[in-house]
Amino acid sequence: MTTSPRVRLDPETRRAQLLDLGVSLLATRSLEEMSIDVLAEHAGISRGLLYHYFGNKQDFHLAVVRRMVEDLYAATAPVDSDEVAVRLSVSLKNYLDFVVANRSAYESVRRAALGGTNPAMREAYEAGRSQLLDRIFDSATEEQLAAHGIVDTPATRLLTRGWGVLVEEVVLDWLADPRGIGEDELIASLTLGLGALLSVAPA
Amino acid sequence: MTTSPRVRLDPETRRAQLLDLGVSLLATRSLEEMSIDVLAEHAGISRGLLYHYFGNKQDFHLAVVRRMVEDLYAATAPVDSDEVAVRLSVSLKNYLDFVVANRSAYESVRRAALGGTNPAMREAYEAGRSQLLDRIFDSATEEQLAAHGIVDTPATRLLTRGWGVLVEEVVLDWLADPRGIGEDELIASLTLGLGALLSVAPA
Repeated sequence: MTTSPRVRLDPETRRAQLLDLGVSLLATRSLEEMSIDVLAEHAGISRGLLYHYFGNKQDFHLAVVRRMVEDLYAATAPVDSDEVAVRLSVSLKNYLDFVVANRSAYESVRRAALGGTNPAMREAYEAGRSQLLDRIFDSATEEQLAAHGIVDTPATRLLTRGWGVLVEEVVLDWLADPRGIGEDELIASLTLGLGALLSVAPA
Repeated sequence: MTTSPRVRLDPETRRAQLLDLGVSLLATRSLEEMSIDVLAEHAGISRGLLYHYFGNKQDFHLAVVRRMVEDLYAATAPVDSDEVAVRLSVSLKNYLDFVVANRSAYESVRRAALGGTNPAMREAYEAGRSQLLDRIFDSATEEQLAAHGIVDTPATRLLTRGWGVLVEEVVLDWLADPRGIGEDELIASLTLGLGALLSVAPA
């Protein structure tokens, strides 16, 4: 069994710590600029050990994308409420807080993943997005969805995926320039926006 | 005055022809794979002359993005109707037709532009998107917008930009898998979707 050179941690925990460090380093550099060398320097451990944990640079970048996707999924877990609108607005508030707290890293990972020089990174990002959006349907009963005006059909799933991308864009746009729109107003209009959008979906 | 080696055309026309050829070559290769060499081979002219028209590879890629953005803008020009919904649905139908006719090129340009290794390309793409979306407001009178439930505010402009990204994503997603949704249904729900979304915008 491998242990880290400084602290006795199991490899999984050590790897997770290194990924967290990797994500935090994205605050001041793009994902493209983040190499195993950069991480080795900041972690104070050898490049060789990092290659042991992450394989090559592409695999390391993929691991960073997956880590952020998992963190985002955990951060936006639905609260315990029968009201879809309540759950949605709390998840949106937590999503917004996550983006604010990790803004450079989030933008960098999102851009690199969607840029598509590495299809596996794009798939990891899009799979994470799909999981987040499918949870809206899968964590609620049919009755709870109906009370928010939502019917689960292929068309509403398609439009909900589109709404998810809209949320990402609008939140980043709003952070860059709030235009006098308050955070509560923003979250309310995104929450109500999903119901409004799905109300005009093909039956 | 420079002329092409084979056909007497003014430089602007020749450059535009070469860009069209460049866009069409994206049907079978990504923008990253499209070099001045590839274009020279297909155009049957020298690399030197192409460098004369386009400068370096990055400038050439930027010119391709701008060309597609301009083509898309022209293809989706609003028709002459007092009804915002009519104009919007015709523009959306023309947008969809454009994407279908240039699908590989469109996806390749969009991905490369949004991937952001070249900020000028992203800016060109996003400026084109903003122009398309601003036209919804700027080509209609206040009364025409109001009849479709649209008020022109910073919040509705912000959400309209988000809706534009939603349209791009939903159209590409639908083309990849129509899910039994008809084209008319898709266009109707995207058209009505904008009004529905803006109806819940902060005042």
